[in-house]
Amino acid sequence: MSKGLPKRADDYSAWYNELVKKADLAENSAVRGCMVIKPYGYSIWEKMQAALDKMFKDTGHKNAYFPLFIPKSYMSREADHIEGFAKECAVVTHYRLKNSEDGSGIIVDPDAKLEEELIIRPTSETVIWNTYKNWIQSYRDLPLLINQWANVVRWEMRTRLFLRTAEFLWQEGHTAHATKREAIEETLKILDVYATFAEEYMGVPVLKGVKTESERFAGAVDTYCIEALMQDGKALQAGTSHFLGQNFAKAFDVKFATKEGGLDLVWGTSWGVSTRLIGGLIMAHSDDLGLVLPPKLAPIQVVIVPIVKDKSQYELIDEKLEPIIQKMENRGISVHYDRRDTHKPGWKFAEYELKGVPLRMAIGPRDLENNTVEIARRDTLTKETVSLDNIDEVVDNLLKEIQQSIYQKALAFQKEQTTEVNTYDEFKNVLEEKGGFVLAHWDGTPETEEKIKSETKATIRCILLDGKEELGKCVYSGKASSQKVVFAKAY
Amino acid sequence: MSKGLPKRADDYSAWYNELVKKADLAENSAVRGCMVIKPYGYSIWEKMQAALDKMFKDTGHKNAYFPLFIPKSYMSREADHIEGFAKECAVVTHYRLKNSEDGSGIIVDPDAKLEEELIIRPTSETVIWNTYKNWIQSYRDLPLLINQWANVVRWEMRTRLFLRTAEFLWQEGHTAHATKREAIEETLKILDVYATFAEEYMGVPVLKGVKTESERFAGAVDTYCIEALMQDGKALQAGTSHFLGQNFAKAFDVKFATKEGGLDLVWGTSWGVSTRLIGGLIMAHSDDLGLVLPPKLAPIQVVIVPIVKDKSQYELIDEKLEPIIQKMENRGISVHYDRRDTHKPGWKFAEYELKGVPLRMAIGPRDLENNTVEIARRDTLTKETVSLDNIDEVVDNLLKEIQQSIYQKALAFQKEQTTEVNTYDEFKNVLEEKGGFVLAHWDGTPETEEKIKSETKATIRCILLDGKEELGKCVYSGKASSQKVVFAKAY
Repeated sequence: MSKGLPKRADDYSAWYNELVKKADLAENSAVRGCMVIKPYGYSIWEKMQAALDKMFKDTGHKNAYFPLFIPKSYMSREADHIEGFAKECAVVTHYRLKNSEDGSGIIVDPDAKLEEELIIRPTSETVIWNTYKNWIQSYRDLPLLINQWANVVRWEMRTRLFLRTAEFLWQEGHTAHATKREAIEETLKILDVYATFAEEYMGVPVLKGVKTESERFAGAVDTYCIEALMQDGKALQAGTSHFLGQNFAKAFDVKFATKEGGLDLVWGTSWGVSTRLIGGLIMAHSDDLGLVLPPKLAPIQVVIVPIVKDKSQYELIDEKLEPIIQKMENRGISVHYDRRDTHKPGWKFAEYELKGVPLRMAIGPRDLENNTVEIARRDTLTKETVSLDNIDEVVDNLLKEIQQSIYQKALAFQKEQTTEVNTYDEFKNVLEEKGGFVLAHWDGTPETEEKIKSETKATIRCILLDGKEELGKCVYSGKASSQKVVFAKAY
Repeated sequence: MSKGLPKRADDYSAWYNELVKKADLAENSAVRGCMVIKPYGYSIWEKMQAALDKMFKDTGHKNAYFPLFIPKSYMSREADHIEGFAKECAVVTHYRLKNSEDGSGIIVDPDAKLEEELIIRPTSETVIWNTYKNWIQSYRDLPLLINQWANVVRWEMRTRLFLRTAEFLWQEGHTAHATKREAIEETLKILDVYATFAEEYMGVPVLKGVKTESERFAGAVDTYCIEALMQDGKALQAGTSHFLGQNFAKAFDVKFATKEGGLDLVWGTSWGVSTRLIGGLIMAHSDDLGLVLPPKLAPIQVVIVPIVKDKSQYELIDEKLEPIIQKMENRGISVHYDRRDTHKPGWKFAEYELKGVPLRMAIGPRDLENNTVEIARRDTLTKETVSLDNIDEVVDNLLKEIQQSIYQKALAFQKEQTTEVNTYDEFKNVLEEKGGFVLAHWDGTPETEEKIKSETKATIRCILLDGKEELGKCVYSGKASSQKVVFAKAY
């Protein structure tokens, strides 16, 4: 293990960047803005994928796969959509390389120019709705509930590992419905799936709300979101679910024969979460010693480190551990027995702390005599010596407790970092001194939103779905407002 | 269900194309050469992925993710590699679109030209070895055993759903080793994994062999392959495993400190299978009525169709089936109870035949009285009426039997379609009249290989790993040969 991370209090941003690299999660590639997701980081993504995929399937969705390339003309069909995505896309213009005639190297073959340029998908609404046109004829074909796991590309200027990268991995759901009501229900159902995933798997409490017009997805009627709070008091948009109305059905002429014999435009939704969630996971829980991972998403849940004076003792420990490891694995617990004699226990302790393994067991000769083991919790850094009898049950319960405890800690932090304010001075003070979510009255205009943003860097994260109606005055303009909305500085 | 497929005997190619579409596996997208993998087809891919991923992990490999984009200069580093892949790649030259000044639409922004063009990965050796350079310092970092699930793009001129598409999905393993021996062992270990997967999951027998120089992967020292035989007597390369020697280590300067204190170039392998396997699966087993799927890869293993005279009978059938379905699902069998009253049983029978569901159960009022059910096998088209007692066990055994039986049938076909010849006339006759694998002596020169190819369209599929040494004369040139090699027309 390499030495020391920056401390969060000193430089949160440097702490994050270093942690991502030192914990072997990801690194920048030689291609600007693209990352390499390393095995340890990728295995967190695999756990996220498995949990989400099951939730999508349990709610009736099926996976499919659509092309990486989108013809340029498709992007233009939906007017808002092209405005939102044209500025940051990778464009394929040619389909061949060749040796240069002067022998200086490999060049793009000018004879191999595409008639129509292809965009690398920044999101797939256009190519999917163009396909749905052929799949949907009648109400019998609806609802169409499809999800795709894929890579997408957005040519971001300022990138950051996991949080904002030119290429990232995600899932994108695209559904089609016969009625507006059904489509809205779907949008909200998925928002609930996302919130449940964030809270029960990631251990991250989230606010559920709807975006203002200026933060809406390009092409959506309404964008719903889950917003999480990081330890530095900044918000992270962790997932979005869009009610598309009939916008893409109009753009791609997707109509269906109704039960009543009419012909109607189809209603749509789309929704996605990405590898950005890994960034959120890291920033929500980890500490100055390294990652803190919730057991449900930890690639290794329990690591066992043997403490020996001489190598002959390994055998006794192996023998003792074998049935115990078996019993834990039978319960579905992922155990790593680090028996390497090339590294000292202290080195291993630091390494697994850095990597956020929820439970560490240390076992030495005296433990063998006493039939005990020392268990250390990564989240609380507490240790206790426990009997090896029923150790599998003890571990199972501890993992559940850690999962809960991590969530409760984050929830307490979120509550503590949520402040209601009534004046603009208060608003600015809280943002400056304390950070976090700031609940304030807003007059509902994009102009005020923009002014607050340019003066304070805070944006409206969302209008809470379960927010209480409360008449008041906009902290900025003094105009009437019917509900406080959630502001924050955000990633 | 739409009407009739072409018959294999009449037009094998049309039969395949129609089957892929009618069985809802995939379709051509509006983007030239790219396919849309529909939910039913994608769920076969998910089953393939799950089985292969487990096999890779069980043999010590971990998943990671590398960038979609490869800088043009990387592709040129390995001389053979660029020759092999430059001709067919998608090139990103720009990173922005904008509104044209004349208001006519969206154009590529000429100011957003990349300094160095990016290639969409046709395969990832270059970008991965460029990364490995930083990951590998010492023998302690080896072996490095990594796999990636990804999309890749090769700008093929003639495409065909699943078999050859511009974009396809695959896995690519990339490993690094301290010694040549270890790297070759890895190459062959993976070849065995592929062969086991083909035979035990796909039910497709394969030949294992090594490619001739002219069919070798661009940049490899040796390319090993598994070759399957389709029902039309043509071969399909179903997977390849490459021993890369130190070629990519040289190209990207990847050296390691040896145990003995020296500095050596690393040895490499790479290997992959793709969505092409779905094409092979279809062509190996299916018949004029539709797909025949091996139970281990079938999205639905058992479909239950109720036969009722009036709707009131549904309830009794539901009641009877509920515990039975539960028992089957407890055994891990995937069951679909098609209770729709909008379609007649006959329509459903044809639909599930087309989709290759291995077992169909039909249950009507008389079955309820007798505590029986009619079970039909998709592979043999045989039916029997069996007791509902222990039906879960009966079904479980039947599925295992079908899995075996499909493989045995394909194996018998492969054996019957493998012919040893001793003269060029025989060679041409067999190719023309019978097809299949043709074993013939070859003088080992690329010239002879090329002439045979241009005269007969047959290529050398591989030199068998377990082929018997046997002195003889090349069927074409009459020159000396030490082993018969496998020729065939191929996809």
